[in-house]
Parts: sequence; C-alpha cells; structure tokens
Amino acid sequence: MTPATSGFDGGPDAGLFSPVRAGTPVEEAVSETAWLQCLLDAEAALARAQAALGTVPAHAARAITRAARAEHFDPRALAVQARETANPVVGLVRALTAAVAADDPQAAEYVHRGSTSQDVLDTGTMMMCRRALDLILGDLHRTAAALAALAGRHRDTVMAGRTLALHAVPTTFGLKAAGWHRLVLDAATRIAAARDALPVSLGGAAGTLAGYLQFAAPDTGAASTGEYRQRLVDAFAAETGLARPVLPWHALRTPVADTAAALAFTTGALGKLAADVQVLVRTEIAEVAEPAVAGRGGSSAMPHKRNPVLSTLIRSAALQVPLLTAGLTQCLVAEDERSAGVWHAEWLLLREALRLAGGAAVTAAELAEGLTPDPARMRHNLDLTGSQVVSERLAALLAPRIGRARAKDLLAQASHTADLRRIPLLEVLRTLPDVTAHHSVEELQQLLDPTAYVGDAPALTARALDTAVPARTPPPTVTPTP
Amino acid sequence: MTPATSGFDGGPDAGLFSPVRAGTPVEEAVSETAWLQCLLDAEAALARAQAALGTVPAHAARAITRAARAEHFDPRALAVQARETANPVVGLVRALTAAVAADDPQAAEYVHRGSTSQDVLDTGTMMMCRRALDLILGDLHRTAAALAALAGRHRDTVMAGRTLALHAVPTTFGLKAAGWHRLVLDAATRIAAARDALPVSLGGAAGTLAGYLQFAAPDTGAASTGEYRQRLVDAFAAETGLARPVLPWHALRTPVADTAAALAFTTGALGKLAADVQVLVRTEIAEVAEPAVAGRGGSSAMPHKRNPVLSTLIRSAALQVPLLTAGLTQCLVAEDERSAGVWHAEWLLLREALRLAGGAAVTAAELAEGLTPDPARMRHNLDLTGSQVVSERLAALLAPRIGRARAKDLLAQASHTADLRRIPLLEVLRTLPDVTAHHSVEELQQLLDPTAYVGDAPALTARALDTAVPARTPPPTVTPTP
Amino acid sequence: MTPATSGFDGGPDAGLFSPVRAGTPVEEAVSETAWLQCLLDAEAALARAQAALGTVPAHAARAITRAARAEHFDPRALAVQARETANPVVGLVRALTAAVAADDPQAAEYVHRGSTSQDVLDTGTMMMCRRALDLILGDLHRTAAALAALAGRHRDTVMAGRTLALHAVPTTFGLKAAGWHRLVLDAATRIAAARDALPVSLGGAAGTLAGYLQFAAPDTGAASTGEYRQRLVDAFAAETGLARPVLPWHALRTPVADTAAALAFTTGALGKLAADVQVLVRTEIAEVAEPAVAGRGGSSAMPHKRNPVLSTLIRSAALQVPLLTAGLTQCLVAEDERSAGVWHAEWLLLREALRLAGGAAVTAAELAEGLTPDPARMRHNLDLTGSQVVSERLAALLAPRIGRARAKDLLAQASHTADLRRIPLLEVLRTLPDVTAHHSVEELQQLLDPTAYVGDAPALTARALDTAVPARTPPPTVTPTP
Amino acid sequence: MTPATSGFDGGPDAGLFSPVRAGTPVEEAVSETAWLQCLLDAEAALARAQAALGTVPAHAARAITRAARAEHFDPRALAVQARETANPVVGLVRALTAAVAADDPQAAEYVHRGSTSQDVLDTGTMMMCRRALDLILGDLHRTAAALAALAGRHRDTVMAGRTLALHAVPTTFGLKAAGWHRLVLDAATRIAAARDALPVSLGGAAGTLAGYLQFAAPDTGAASTGEYRQRLVDAFAAETGLARPVLPWHALRTPVADTAAALAFTTGALGKLAADVQVLVRTEIAEVAEPAVAGRGGSSAMPHKRNPVLSTLIRSAALQVPLLTAGLTQCLVAEDERSAGVWHAEWLLLREALRLAGGAAVTAAELAEGLTPDPARMRHNLDLTGSQVVSERLAALLAPRIGRARAKDLLAQASHTADLRRIPLLEVLRTLPDVTAHHSVEELQQLLDPTAYVGDAPALTARALDTAVPARTPPPTVTPTP
Repeated sequence: MTPATSGFDGGPDAGLFSPVRAGTPVEEAVSETAWLQCLLDAEAALARAQAALGTVPAHAARAITRAARAEHFDPRALAVQARETANPVVGLVRALTAAVAADDPQAAEYVHRGSTSQDVLDTGTMMMCRRALDLILGDLHRTAAALAALAGRHRDTVMAGRTLALHAVPTTFGLKAAGWHRLVLDAATRIAAARDALPVSLGGAAGTLAGYLQFAAPDTGAASTGEYRQRLVDAFAAETGLARPVLPWHALRTPVADTAAALAFTTGALGKLAADVQVLVRTEIAEVAEPAVAGRGGSSAMPHKRNPVLSTLIRSAALQVPLLTAGLTQCLVAEDERSAGVWHAEWLLLREALRLAGGAAVTAAELAEGLTPDPARMRHNLDLTGSQVVSERLAALLAPRIGRARAKDLLAQASHTADLRRIPLLEVLRTLPDVTAHHSVEELQQLLDPTAYVGDAPALTARALDTAVPARTPPPTVTPTP
Repeated sequence: MTPATSGFDGGPDAGLFSPVRAGTPVEEAVSETAWLQCLLDAEAALARAQAALGTVPAHAARAITRAARAEHFDPRALAVQARETANPVVGLVRALTAAVAADDPQAAEYVHRGSTSQDVLDTGTMMMCRRALDLILGDLHRTAAALAALAGRHRDTVMAGRTLALHAVPTTFGLKAAGWHRLVLDAATRIAAARDALPVSLGGAAGTLAGYLQFAAPDTGAASTGEYRQRLVDAFAAETGLARPVLPWHALRTPVADTAAALAFTTGALGKLAADVQVLVRTEIAEVAEPAVAGRGGSSAMPHKRNPVLSTLIRSAALQVPLLTAGLTQCLVAEDERSAGVWHAEWLLLREALRLAGGAAVTAAELAEGLTPDPARMRHNLDLTGSQVVSERLAALLAPRIGRARAKDLLAQASHTADLRRIPLLEVLRTLPDVTAHHSVEELQQLLDPTAYVGDAPALTARALDTAVPARTPPPTVTPTP
Repeated sequence: MTPATSGFDGGPDAGLFSPVRAGTPVEEAVSETAWLQCLLDAEAALARAQAALGTVPAHAARAITRAARAEHFDPRALAVQARETANPVVGLVRALTAAVAADDPQAAEYVHRGSTSQDVLDTGTMMMCRRALDLILGDLHRTAAALAALAGRHRDTVMAGRTLALHAVPTTFGLKAAGWHRLVLDAATRIAAARDALPVSLGGAAGTLAGYLQFAAPDTGAASTGEYRQRLVDAFAAETGLARPVLPWHALRTPVADTAAALAFTTGALGKLAADVQVLVRTEIAEVAEPAVAGRGGSSAMPHKRNPVLSTLIRSAALQVPLLTAGLTQCLVAEDERSAGVWHAEWLLLREALRLAGGAAVTAAELAEGLTPDPARMRHNLDLTGSQVVSERLAALLAPRIGRARAKDLLAQASHTADLRRIPLLEVLRTLPDVTAHHSVEELQQLLDPTAYVGDAPALTARALDTAVPARTPPPTVTPTP
Repeated sequence: MTPATSGFDGGPDAGLFSPVRAGTPVEEAVSETAWLQCLLDAEAALARAQAALGTVPAHAARAITRAARAEHFDPRALAVQARETANPVVGLVRALTAAVAADDPQAAEYVHRGSTSQDVLDTGTMMMCRRALDLILGDLHRTAAALAALAGRHRDTVMAGRTLALHAVPTTFGLKAAGWHRLVLDAATRIAAARDALPVSLGGAAGTLAGYLQFAAPDTGAASTGEYRQRLVDAFAAETGLARPVLPWHALRTPVADTAAALAFTTGALGKLAADVQVLVRTEIAEVAEPAVAGRGGSSAMPHKRNPVLSTLIRSAALQVPLLTAGLTQCLVAEDERSAGVWHAEWLLLREALRLAGGAAVTAAELAEGLTPDPARMRHNLDLTGSQVVSERLAALLAPRIGRARAKDLLAQASHTADLRRIPLLEVLRTLPDVTAHHSVEELQQLLDPTAYVGDAPALTARALDTAVPARTPPPTVTPTP
C-alpha cells in the first residue's frame, strides 16, 4: 500500500476537539493503548484457559501473559499493518509471537492457538467496554444521588412549568429534578444490563471452534467435543470476567448493539438535563446556575461571560451518540460468518460512543453536584404573566357554572386583554360579571396565586425518590462469570 | 394558515411505495384511523377512570365512550386543524365534545376533564404501540419456531463457512440457522420488555396533575391529593391495560426510546437473516431458495427471474429503522415540561418504525417458514477450493512438527500453487516432504475432507436450540396492570 | 403471501400525525396517488418517445396515454401485489396493459416496451421530485423575500446578541434576519440545482438498453444503436421535462442522494430560523411573536396559551430530515446492476423527506411573513445585564493603557461585583482608579450604552441583502431538456 | 473539574482501530497537531491581516507568526483547559500570548485582537478542511483515471448483469467500470465545490465585528466601518487562502454542512465500488481480484485466505460517514449567535468524516489501480443459467408473433422447465412449436448467445468516458481569494 508512514505516527489523541471527554477517566479506559492492552489480555486469558485444560503448557501461558504488555508494542506499526489485513490482530499476533519467543521460544508456538482475529478483537473489546461501562455507571449513580438530593431539597420550590417555550402552569423545581433523576436511573439500569451481558468471543475461524478442537490436548478428559468446548468457554470467561454466550457471535452482534443502545439512551437522558439547564440559565431567566469554578466558562472576548460549559459539553455528546448507535445497530446486518466491512465499521463508532457517553456522564455528575437553583428568581419569573400561568385553574372553577367552553373562552379573552393592556389577569377578571358573581376579589387573589396551584408535585417528587432503585453496588473490575 | 385544503384529502396510504408492510396486520394496527381510535379510546378510558372515582358521572363516561368512535370523525379536518395547534388533540377534543353533546349534552362537559393534549396523545400512542408490538412478537415467535426447525433438520448439513466474502472453513447450515434463531429470540426478548413497560400518560398541563385535582370530585374519599392521583393512575391503567409510570413522562421519554431501540434491534436481527439469504441465493451459489409461490419474484422484463423478494423487503426495512430510532433517541433531549418540536418529531418516526419492523417481522416469518436449503449444492460449493477450505486444519496438524509459522507459510504457499495450477490442494501437498513424511495420501485425503472439519457445529446447534427461552404466551389484548 | 388484506385498505394519509405537512401543496404533490400518476406518466411518455422514433405506433402511444390515469387503478391491489415482486411496477404494468387492451387491444402490446420496472419507477419518482422541489423553491423564495424585508426594516433595531445562552454583545435584529435570509437563499440554491439535474431513467433490465434496442423499429434511420439510444433518451427527456443522464443510473444514485442532501440542508436552514424564534418568544424574553391568527396556538388545557406552533412544526421536520437523508446517502452503496433492498429503501425515505421539507418550507414562509419583532422589548432586555453586555468594549478601551490581560480581568471582576451587588456595571467602574483616571462618568455612560456598540451590523445587513441572488424565475412545470 | 489528568495524556491516535485511514496522508492533515497548527495559523494570519491595515504593528504580527508553532504548545494541557471553556481557543490564546510575550513582550498585546474563539476555530478548521479536501480530490482523480482506463480496456468484456442478486441480462465489465468512474467524478465535483467555498470566519464576539472595529487603528483610511471590515476580510482571506463569506457564519453553518454532504457522497460513491467488488470476488464468482500484494489479505487462522481488504476498508467508511454527516446537517439548527452545544458537536464529527472519507479515497485509488478482472471467468459464469440470462431477448422476439404476455409466459415456463431438468434453455425451446415455427435450431443458438445481447453497453461506455470532465488542475495550497 501507498500510505506515507515515514515520520508521522498519527499524532496524539488528547481530546483537544472533544472536550467533553478530555482528561476524564473513560478516556484512559478506551484509549488506543488501553484497547490494545485489552487485546493482549484476551490473548493471555485464552492461553491460560487452554492451559487449564491441558492444551497449552503452563509455562507457555505464563510466558504469553508476561509478554502481553501494550508498552512492548508499536501501535503505529500495528495500525499500518492493519490496513493490509483489515484488522489489527493479524499483525499483533505476529508481534506477540516474536515477543514471547524472545522470552521462551517454545512458548511462542502456543500464542493464539486455534484462534482467529475476531475472537481476540471481540473479547478484548468487551473487556474495554466493561471498564468503560463501569465508569459510566459510577458517574450515573453520582449524578442520580446529587439530583435526588436536589429534588428533595426543592420539593416545595415553586417555579413556572413551561411548555412549547411558554409559561404553562406552575410546577416545582423538585419535580423537575426528580424527572432528571428518574431518567438518569433509567440510563443506569440500561448500562448495568448491557455491562453484565458482555460475553467472551470464542468461535475460531468461522464460529465452529474447529481450530480450538483441532489443537485440543489429545487427552483432555472431556467426554465430547461439546464438553471440551464448554470447559474452554467457561475457563475463558473466568479468566476475563466476561459472560458466556450461547453461541459464537462473530456475526450475531447483540452485545455491541445493546451496548450502543444503552449509550445512546444515556446521552439522551443526560441531554435532557443539559437542555433544561440551558433554558434556565438564560440571562432573562436565570433560575439556575452551573457550578461556579474560578476561570470556568470564560470567553476569549467577553470579560463578563460565565458560560454554561458543562451543559454545553453534555449537549454536544447527546447530539452525536444516537447517530453512532444507529450505525452500530445497522451493523447487526452482517453477512456470512464474518462480514467484509460491517464488523470493521463498529470499532470507531463504539469507541467514540463510549467516550462521549463517559465524558457526558462525568460532566453530568459535576453539573448535578454543583447546580444552584435560585428560588427567588423562580418566584419572580412565575409572576411575569400576571397570573395567566394559572388560567387553567380559573377555567376549571368557572366551567361547572358557565360551561367548559365558555369558561375557556372567557379566560382566553381575559388573558388577551391583560396582555394588550399589560395588566394582571386579576384586573380583568374583577370586571367580568361571570366571575364576580361567584368570587370576591380576595378569593380571586387566592385563586390566582401561582404557588397555590402546584397540583401533586411535592408528593410525586417524594414518591419518585422513594421508588428509586437502590444504587447498585459498584461492580468489581473482574467478576466471576455468572 | 394558507394550506390549500379544498378538494384534496391527503390521499390513501395503501403502502404502494412501502411494500414491506403493505397489507400486513401491523399496517392496520398503526393506520391513521387506528391511531385516531386509540386517542379516542384514551379519552374514553380517562372518563371511565374518573367516573370510577366519582369525578365524572357514570352516564357521562358512557356517553363519551359511545361517541369515541373514529368513524365519526374526519381525519382530514383534524389534520388541518392540527397545524394550528401543532397536535391533533386540541381539535379532536373539540370534535369529540360536539359529538358527545349531540348525544348527551350534559356529558359534554366531562370530556377531557382536567386533561391535556399530551396525556391523550401519549396514552393513545402507547395503546397503538402495544398492539403493534404484540403483532411483531407473534411474528418473531413464528420466525423463531421455523428457524429452530430448520436448524434442527440441518444440524449436520455441511456447507462452506464464509468470512470476508470468501470460503473460510466448513460450517453447518444448522449452525447458521441457529444463529438466526438466536438473534430472533433476542429481538423477541427486547420487544416483549418494551411492550410490557408501555405506560399510561397522566400528568395534566405540565406534569403536576393540577388540572385533574382541580376537577376532582369534592368528596373522593382519598386521604390526600397523592392518594387521589394514585387511584386515578391505577384506574386509567386498568382501563387501558397499560403500565403505571413512576412519574408523568411528558418530557421523560423512556418508553418511546425503549420501543424504538427494540424495533431497531428487531430489523437489524431480521436484516442479518435477509443478508445471508441474499448471499446464498446468488446464481453462482444457489444454496438456498426463498419460498416458491406462483407469480412471486417476477420481473417486468425478464421471464426467467424469480427474485428473492422477501429478503429484499426485509433488508429495505433494516436499513431504515435504525435511522428512525436515532431520531427517537435524540428526542430524549426534550426541553422544559413539553418540548416545542421534539415531541412532535416522534410521531412520524415512531409509526414508520413500527410498521417497517412489523412488516419485516411478518415477512421474515414467511421467509423462515418456506426457506429451502439445497444440501447437495452446499456440498458442491464446498469443494470449489479443492480443499483449501480446510487449510487451517492441515496447518494445525503440521504445526507441532515444523512450527506454527512454517506450517502456516507452507499451507499458504501450497494454496497459492494450487490456485495457479488450478489443482486440488492434495496434489500439491503430496509433493511436499514436510507433509509426506508424516501422512500417507490416504490420510491426507481424509484430513482434507471438508465434511470432517466442522468443529463443534452440530453440538452447538443442539445446545442453542435447547437453551432457547420457551415461547412467551401470546399476550392478551388488554392486560390488567401489574 | 399471508397478509390479511380483506376489508382493510391501508387507510387515509391525512397527515394527522405529521401536521407540518398536513394540507400543504407538497402533500398533494407527493401523495401516493400523485406518485402513482407519475409512474403512469412515465409509461405514457416512454410510449410517446418510442412512437416518435417509429418503434411504437402513434395510436398505441395515444391509447397508452389515455389509459394512464391513476384514478383507473386500485392502489391497494397494486400495493399488495408489490409485496410479491418487491416493487409496484410489475403489477402496474399488468393493470395498465389490461386497461389499454380494453380500449385498443392492439395497443396493449406496446405498453412498457423493452422497459424495466426501475426505469418507470425512477423516472416517475424524478417527476414527482421535480414538482415537490418546485413547490419548495417557491416557498423558499417567499420566505427569503419576507426575511429580506424584515431585515431591511430592522437594520438598526438593536438587541442582545446571545452566545451559549447568555447575553454576549449587542447586535441588531436586522443582522439576525439577514442571517436567516442568507441560509434560506443557500437552501434555495441547493434545491434549484438538485431540481435542474433530475434525470430520466432509461436503462432497460440491467442498464444496457438491450430490451429497448431489441424492440427498436427495424428501420429507425439511426446510424447505430448508440444513435438510436441517444434519440430515445432525448425524446423521453423531452416528454417528461427531465434531464438526460450520462449513463443509466439504476445503481448510480447521484440524483437521489443530491435531492436528499438539498432537502436536509433546507430543513436545517429553516430549523435555524425556528430555533431562534423559539428562544425569542419565551415568556421571559418575548422579543418576537409568531403571526397571530384566531385560534392558532391554543392549548387543550390552558386558555392563556398562544403556542409558537409554526416554529414548533418546522423544528420537528428539521430533526427528522437529516436522518432520512443519511439513509438515502447510504443507499449509494447499491450492489450489482440493481440492489436487492437498497433501492427499495429509498422510496419511503425520499417521500417523507420531500413532504417534511415541503411542509417546513410553506410553514417557514408563513412564519417569516408574519413574524413580529418587539423592538422595545429588545431594548428592555438589552439592559438586563446593566451594561455588562458591552464589557468587551470597555476591555478593549482599557487594554492599550493597562494591558489586555489586566483589562480583561478588571472587567471580569467588575462584572462579578455588579452581579453580586445587583447594580449596573457603571456603579462599579466609577469606583475604579484604572477607569476613572481616563474616563469621566459621562464618557463611561456613553461607552456603556449598548446601542452604541453594534459594530458593523447595519452595513453588513445592507450588504447581505444587496448580494442576494435575484429570485429565480418560477420554473415551468415541464421544461424542455437542456 | 474532576478529571484525573495526572500521568495520562489521552494516548496516541495511530489508527489501530480505524485502519481505513491509518498511515494515509489525510490522517496527518487532520491530526490533532495539524488542526492545532491551523488554529495557530489562523491567529497569525489575523495578526498579519490587521497589520496590513495598520491595526497591529508589523513587528507584532511577525512575532505572533513566529510563536504560532504547534510544537510549542501542550495539546493535553489545552484539551483539559478546553473543558473549562467548552472550546480549546480560550486556553490557546492564553498560551500563545505567553509564548509571544517571551519573544516580544509588546507584541503579546496584539494576539487575538478584537477576536473571538469561534473566528479562530472556524477559520483554522476551514484551513484543515481545505488540506484534507485537496488530498481527497487528488485521490478521487487517481481513482477516476484508473477506472476510466479499466472501462476502456474492457469495453467489450461481456459479463452477467445482476439484479436482486441474480443473473439478469448480459452487460459488460466496461459499462460497470464506467459507472464507478461516473460516481467518482460526481464525488470529485462535489468535493471541489465544497473546497472552493470554504470561507474565513470573521465576526467577533457575536458576528458584528464590533471588537475588530473597536481595535481598529484610529486612522485606517477606510471611509466607513463597512469599508474597514471589508478590507479586513479581504486581507484575512488573502492570508489564509480561504474564500470571503457574505456574512459572519458563526451560526450559519453552510460551509460545514456542505463539506459534510460532499464527504458522505464521496464515501457512498466509493462504497458502491467496494460493494460490487465484494460480490465479484466471492469464491463462487471470482470475476475480479483485488490487487495482490505480498502479505496482503492474510488471516490469523486460515493460510489460504487472501481477503479483499481494500473493499472491506472502504465499505466500513461508507457505512459510517453518512451518519456523521446527518449530525453535521442537524448542526445547522444552531440557536442564537452561537449555540451552546451544537457548534461543539461539529468538531469530532467533521474530523472523523474527513479522515474516513480521505482514507476511503486513497484506498479506492489503490483498489482501482490494481483491480484485476478475469474475463474468462466472467464468460464462464455467464453460461451458468444455460442462456436464461437472455430470456428477455427471446420474449421480445416472440412477442410480435404470439403476443407479449404469452411470450413472457412461454419463456418463464421454459426457464422453469430448464431449471427442473437442469438443461439449457435451448433444449426446452427446440421442443416448442411456437418457437420452432419461426426459428431453426441454428438461429436459436445464435439468439441465445449471451455475448450477442449486450445492448448498447460498449457505446455507452465510450461515451461516458468521453463526457468525463477533464481532470481539475491540482489546486494550489494557498489560492488568492476569488
């Protein structure tokens, strides 16, 4: 191939143009180096699993494990070789074999024994996913805890409910925060389920395990090829901490599609939080503030700016990840026992989805933990419509007396008049016989008090917090297979 | 608004340009008329639920239920009105109120009592989804049953395993069908979970239920607003057969996102089946045939053609649905208590996703039930490489004697020579001392027999069929809420 | 196939759940009936083109043209048949042949002569696209004209420029409107280019035109097959008003991909307008209002509501169309001389993209023509930050004297102090020696006047309106081929 | 913020998991370092442009240009700072100012004068895009040239035309290659147009250029702010080689959307080539081979494998880029004068789209230049249907005598009989009186010769190659603005 490789190595991946994940733990977990290490871990785990069954000598498994350190390999050389074979494992096996040979020549024979590129790449990728999903899960739980606390503290803080960009009826900040909390828990549930299902890949060249069986020790003690296969899968799962699939899944991409769907859901859920924050921080609204940190939110031009950068970063991720997930879901349509191109499209999409979602999760945790509502400002804004925000209530009260349609028309007309004359709704209503026939001005004042029309918001909030699933115990880095 | 509405009504929706769903049951379940009926069912169910709590007179609930028949309403007039309010419910409530008034004037007051457009639209949509998902689930189970039978019958039918478009190592048709079966079961699991979680929507204007509470009967017997709210949700869920949400979900779109994800997964899973069929029916390969039906697969030009139309239709759906789902997942990012545009983007996307997936599912069932493999042709094709398809096996056998790298090189070179000279691999191997030193020609012939190198495919197939989850009992049309 | 077709016909397509296009002209232009008519027009045009070359008798072409009326055909029957052949043309040719035979039995022999389904479907689709794109173009020009007028009228109307949700520096409403205008012109340019390039499809069964040549009149007078082919393409293009492609494009989908890209751009451009309007109509901001129409924007619950429904509808389309376009662009990857599934995925995506974009365009025209800015409110809001909105200006003035960094810090600190103490920036600045050393309070007052810091906004606006391309003459419904 | 930055720098970006671009020139052109350099180039170009107008001292512009070298900056530190401000320019300006100050303290005052982050980021990004698009254009022209040569050489090479996966009618390899060529030229046209339109960004904090004007030299000689602005834009465009926009485009994202659309089209066009190659290389078909290179296409398991890796890599890109483009098109919907999140979502999407498309283009050039068709194998496969591949021709011949419908039925039935009995079509036809009444067996043999039924394929091929636009002169790296 023609690529000019001299003197250029691809460059760093510092996240300069993807700040949502720059410097966050998930970035390290899915870095090229970390992923490479996962592939090597998969090779080593396979050797140990085969050693446990007598197919590979114990010393060879140890030598392979020793050699399987990412720092011994040149990612650039492997990447350029990967163009020749369409995946990085062919070259990696060659390089790993050489590295093992340098340590224990006999052991080199046992590298990648009976295996195929996809088993190693898929298993390594699942290990990388698990680490990333664990981080995301931790950050979702942090976010949920902060939002629950916020909702609890503001159970009774009244604010304008907004629909189609306008004040609708009053609500509470507690209920709004409880909604965010609920979505974050939904995301955590989906991430945890995807995480727990991540399987090892063990199929050999075309999913029959023929290569593994061909290399099986002459006397494995297994009563059948099926028993040997099952023991090998069990041992490999135990070594990697991954689950055991029902079938080799080279071309049955459920684990990738599920992970992708969970990541898209997660950024969508966090994006809802971010979108709401971006409404509420607007100069004219100013009902919440992002956590204030020295230097945060500065502009290169405008000294007074304190930009809502956390919600900005989260929103940038929420726009992108569902599109990456669409691609990963389309990758279910993989022809044959291994697709020529569809499998290969997964890698970039999956890794970007992981680190965008991971970046969004850690950013959301920080946002939630430092989000500062301004109840006084909420109260102030709630009065902007001069009580029109409770027009629904008045219409409901009048309906039994003058009919629902007429009541609604009356309130619509009164609201319109109040707008035109820029006066409170009360000033209009007190002139209308249909109203004054039944209500004194004092009663009207009470009925028009927005804080007295929050429906069941406080109780809903309390109940939602009560029914939250208990935070899942942080998963161990390597769990025995279920 | 300016739309020219005179004399044109939008036209029929016969599916002329979406044949994957034309005439299938799901099409009827999600037709505009059916969806409209679901909205009306939601209004009627709400009235009955309120009647059960004393908020609405029983006669009114009955009158509303009587009037709530889609055939009484003009979809076109409602659609054009919907442009004025951005959703069809505002106009529908007006029309329903008039229809009720014509029957029972007093009852008209109780239509849509305390409610909001989104409660009705979301609840109705969930009812429509449930019907569509039930149909899809049924077709997935049909598909799975047919694939399981196919896999069982062909457990030992050997064929070429293919990777990156080329013959790789032998596999069995049973294992391939078992893989399809597994994916279809995975889809069914996801559809069933989404289906069971579909909730009623009951939040009122901005999710606080204030309107419902304002209209609550003076003496409901409830100890608190929270208790009344809960009873109302319970009654509404019982009337509709939907689940009860933890919180009003006007702007917490988990049910829609989950349904969308399940639909995308489903078309992806079925798309894998379709993609494989399209490889196997190729003129040069001809290992399977789609079910033959008189007139099926004809061309307007070429008399000899019998096009694989079922897989073609499925594949067309598999390309589209993940993109619609991406949009529905992005719709999680809905600002405020109701978004101005994001909610509105869901409707078309969701309905098309439902009927494309539903069409794909019924098409897949027919494909799976009539798919005809040709074992003789599979056997014939397996020989096309002159035993190179088992080069892996020979390399494994030689590796312990001459080293893995040398064994692989030897087989690569021998394969290349066989290609150049267009002779079977055996003819090359029998000339190589490294080979003949250990194996007689007779042994080589046995080792090069592709049918003797299927690994654990038959046992894997058997096990995968055994571990299939039992077919779920067909869900009732209306279930009591859990 | 199994579809239950008895008694259900797919239902109406009134747009009840896609209000952005309900009742708009584009809906009629792309209705199932209109599209079916386009297919029939393509068949008739082909017959006339062949008649012009002597291949088809003139009476036959006339009979075919007479019979080719959509109202004579049953879309539902054709749709259900389309499932058997994966496209609607096979059945349509059969039905059209029967219809012609009933009129002129001899003519029936000449229906679809030498042709293939895809030639008819693609040509008909291009004709439908042209009509839809013409409508969109007209509405984009209406929108642009209204926005240009708005920009001109408000060239000097000062308002807050907003970045990352916060007041940044002043701008003008004229410049904002000029930006919308520019994007709309960009969209119009792209739509016009796509429209003018829409080609006939004429390739025969696999793109070689063999069928057409086989049926060519024995004495066509053409010197070669190439000349006959070219004359046939010319005649077909002249009959349909479409352009002439360089090559048959059954599997070279540039026209569809280009149309799709132009539609996605269009909804994106209009979506920018909608997004801005939704910010500016917010209760707290209230700087613009959507056009007021009696009954428009009403809520089913809240009498006071006047929802911004036009921008809501546009935004709903802007979210969806780029996703449909992604699918249509992926459809470029069509294998063979005709894909088995990829071509079939285009139809629904393309039609929805056309009518969503068309609906958005007509909605945008109405929005632009009636959008009402409130300059007084803009002025009011501009003062909300107590002149912090011009902190950049002060920093620039101080920079030469105290250094840029120190100037920026000084203003940042002063802004922060002003926020904390809720006082205007002037009150802080007048206490700072670095400031007062150079500026009197009167000077500061002038410098802090937001209306005096609009940069070059008015001149930019004027120039942008001047450089607008002249409105394209409305295209004729059928143009001679270029 | 909390990110753990100690000891981890994001890692390398060697392309290990994106082999389509690993080691290709575009990778270097869009590396993080290259992009950073573009930002610095934009800062330096701005200073020089301002110097040309007297706003910045010439020595300061020189000092800024000297300091603006990416190697002096720490991408990781900038990336982590970027999380605090949501873009990397704020920190970069700080670092650049410090670097300039170390060299020429007075000059430091002039860094980023009057500017804003987005002007620098957008301008730098356009410079990066131009370099990447130039590379892509070069590779598309290479690809087109190779395909034109291939088409010319095989103008008369007959092969099976395939539709819906089956043999349809004969075509030529020349026509197939001419179709690929046409799509590649279409892509080149779109890339070139996008490239030539890439503009500088110069708007200041909110698009009014107020900051630039505030800092303008007291005596610029310009007659108006508008004239100064225009001169500054001209000078900036001249310095960067970019085009001049009509308006500041901070929130008018036409250049990004157009570039994205061109990239998606490009990968789609190349994906068509790849998809066809993947059909034609299949073991059973074997009509073309990818260029053979030692070691290319090897498997980690199967010695005989020579995988079609080039088409695999291209296909992987073709699946992804349209999805990234969907996101970039959605980014047109950017609220306000600068969006809080939408702008930020562009960066990753755009860069991945550039390097995936760039990698696909260089890979396609190599594929096209080395693609080896096998005419003998094409001829062999063409005979597989025993002349059914020309059933259309026979039906056309019989139609005038026995009617089109009967002719088609006769051929359909004859084809079916031939299939069942596994005999050539001739053997069936020679027994049918309707056929033998008019044609001798010798005539039938001639009529059934697939090579005699290629329609106008050779002439179409020749004409398509003739009408190819002449290869565009390679664009200079820096062009004077038009």
